[in-house]
Amino acid sequence: MSSSKYQFIHNIIPHLSPSQKGQGRANVNIALAKYWGKRDIELNLPTNSSLSISLPGLGTETTIQWIDNSKDTITLNDQPCKPEQPFAARLSHFLEPFRPDPQGGFEIKTHNSVPTAAGLASSASGYAALVLALNDCFQWQLDLKSLSLLARLGSGSASRSVYDGFAIWHQGQQQDGMDSFAEKIDQAWSNLKIGLLEIDISEKPIGSTQGMQQTVNHCELYQAWPQKAEKDVVTLQSAIANQDFTLLGTTAENNALSMHATMLATWPPICYFQPDSIQAMQQVWQLRAQGTEVYFTMDAGPNLKLLFLEKDQQQLKESFPNLKVIHPFSVESETTT
Amino acid sequence: MSSSKYQFIHNIIPHLSPSQKGQGRANVNIALAKYWGKRDIELNLPTNSSLSISLPGLGTETTIQWIDNSKDTITLNDQPCKPEQPFAARLSHFLEPFRPDPQGGFEIKTHNSVPTAAGLASSASGYAALVLALNDCFQWQLDLKSLSLLARLGSGSASRSVYDGFAIWHQGQQQDGMDSFAEKIDQAWSNLKIGLLEIDISEKPIGSTQGMQQTVNHCELYQAWPQKAEKDVVTLQSAIANQDFTLLGTTAENNALSMHATMLATWPPICYFQPDSIQAMQQVWQLRAQGTEVYFTMDAGPNLKLLFLEKDQQQLKESFPNLKVIHPFSVESETTT
Repeated sequence: MSSSKYQFIHNIIPHLSPSQKGQGRANVNIALAKYWGKRDIELNLPTNSSLSISLPGLGTETTIQWIDNSKDTITLNDQPCKPEQPFAARLSHFLEPFRPDPQGGFEIKTHNSVPTAAGLASSASGYAALVLALNDCFQWQLDLKSLSLLARLGSGSASRSVYDGFAIWHQGQQQDGMDSFAEKIDQAWSNLKIGLLEIDISEKPIGSTQGMQQTVNHCELYQAWPQKAEKDVVTLQSAIANQDFTLLGTTAENNALSMHATMLATWPPICYFQPDSIQAMQQVWQLRAQGTEVYFTMDAGPNLKLLFLEKDQQQLKESFPNLKVIHPFSVESETTT
Repeated sequence: MSSSKYQFIHNIIPHLSPSQKGQGRANVNIALAKYWGKRDIELNLPTNSSLSISLPGLGTETTIQWIDNSKDTITLNDQPCKPEQPFAARLSHFLEPFRPDPQGGFEIKTHNSVPTAAGLASSASGYAALVLALNDCFQWQLDLKSLSLLARLGSGSASRSVYDGFAIWHQGQQQDGMDSFAEKIDQAWSNLKIGLLEIDISEKPIGSTQGMQQTVNHCELYQAWPQKAEKDVVTLQSAIANQDFTLLGTTAENNALSMHATMLATWPPICYFQPDSIQAMQQVWQLRAQGTEVYFTMDAGPNLKLLFLEKDQQQLKESFPNLKVIHPFSVESETTT
């Protein structure tokens, strides 16, 4: 591990003495202005700020316990993971700087209520839940900003998953990464709905980290992205403050398509679109042309996430029979299908 | 008509006295480095140079005759066109500055061997054939550079269709547009093949001119395009000079995807991909991963044009049973299916 990462962590955590079995839970989040590109790979520092909304009811629950004279044992959704599996290897690597003793290991049990690695940001809720569980295990009593900083090291978008509702991850300017964390945008929007349209939940052909670095290095159109993304974050903040749904939807859809555009323009090309993604996009555009105000966003995967208002929910469930509707700000906080 | 366009034309043509029924024929061309964006709409001046290959056997044949005391009469593939039809209206508008007398009209008969307005560049061969027919009708005896300049006014890509083989359309710098014309690249490549993969030949949802101007005005990633396209033209010239197929294919495919990327990142979004386009793209990538060197390019439409070498022709016809193979440089100059 590099000294910059070690120093970063020890600037934040007060000690390495575990005191109990810790637990944490966090929701996935969907970026309305995307994170696409790192300026520092070691510290997971982004080239631009991003803005997200949390999906209540979809996320990760994790328990963690320190065991002396043991290796890490990791179970995912009640299935033991072999240490060499990418999921387990990445997790154990992340935990390196948190080990009180090189001879021991962590026992981690994690449950995802979203498919793993299918562009539904399970790594965001996963690393946020893990950091919350570590905070509980070590009884550090860190504030949310510090937890966001730590979660960022596991997965950039995890920095946003320590909050409910809207969150903004500030790009930050410092080399040490201490100013690149997420904050809650303390604003509810009760009639805003999210619809999950699963096109394909199999493993992605190329992971986000590899995809974004290929784009940064091998896409001639990427140079315009960071500034555009930064502008979109400002526009979305204004849309949220004024509950201007048209501004929110147009900005989010254009931001998502612009991110996918940078991928397509990369060599070799990165294309997360599947034929059914295009068909669903066309259906959204057709609905909009017919007067139903619905927008979509897409992450590094083929699935669409629809943005709409409560009044159009029935219409959308008719147009997309498999739509899973999420209520980000209702007291019910339930997923309905 | 603006004075700049009138002046441009009368800088080129020597007189307006028709002498016979004129005829002309021209092939469609496929851009390997695309034309996407105008710096001057009136004069059809592009934001970047482009480079193309002509498709022998696919194109337009046109006859034109001046008739005193008549209106324009236009037939397309033996069907009379009403003057208000977009095809006829655009053609008559183009012919305005060539009329010897406001009381007369042209009788135009045009045959396309490619579907009209389906992203197969029928306007390129159409306006090139028309200008060649005008040159014959008026007996101007213009050189190819002058014919390319005139064809450009009808459709930018028509500037390249006055030549066979490879052609480069120079962006030009002058405001009067006199240095923005195409030239032949005098180099054959006998084992280079083009495969047409028709996904959908129905009319395009949005024409190229409107699409490119929306992109220029409403795409934040577009700023990087002109320089990238210019660089690709230079790279392709080198690939052609050295018959470096890998360089040709990677540059052409990346250029096409980058153009489509700028469209997707436009608001409202422009998407010429159809579900079957994505499927065909995935099939090309899979073939390449398996060792068959094939690339694609796509224009403002859903159809793919494959680039490959003669040795892989059989394999590609097996993978894509509907592939129409074009031999751009064979003596046969035939289309085989």
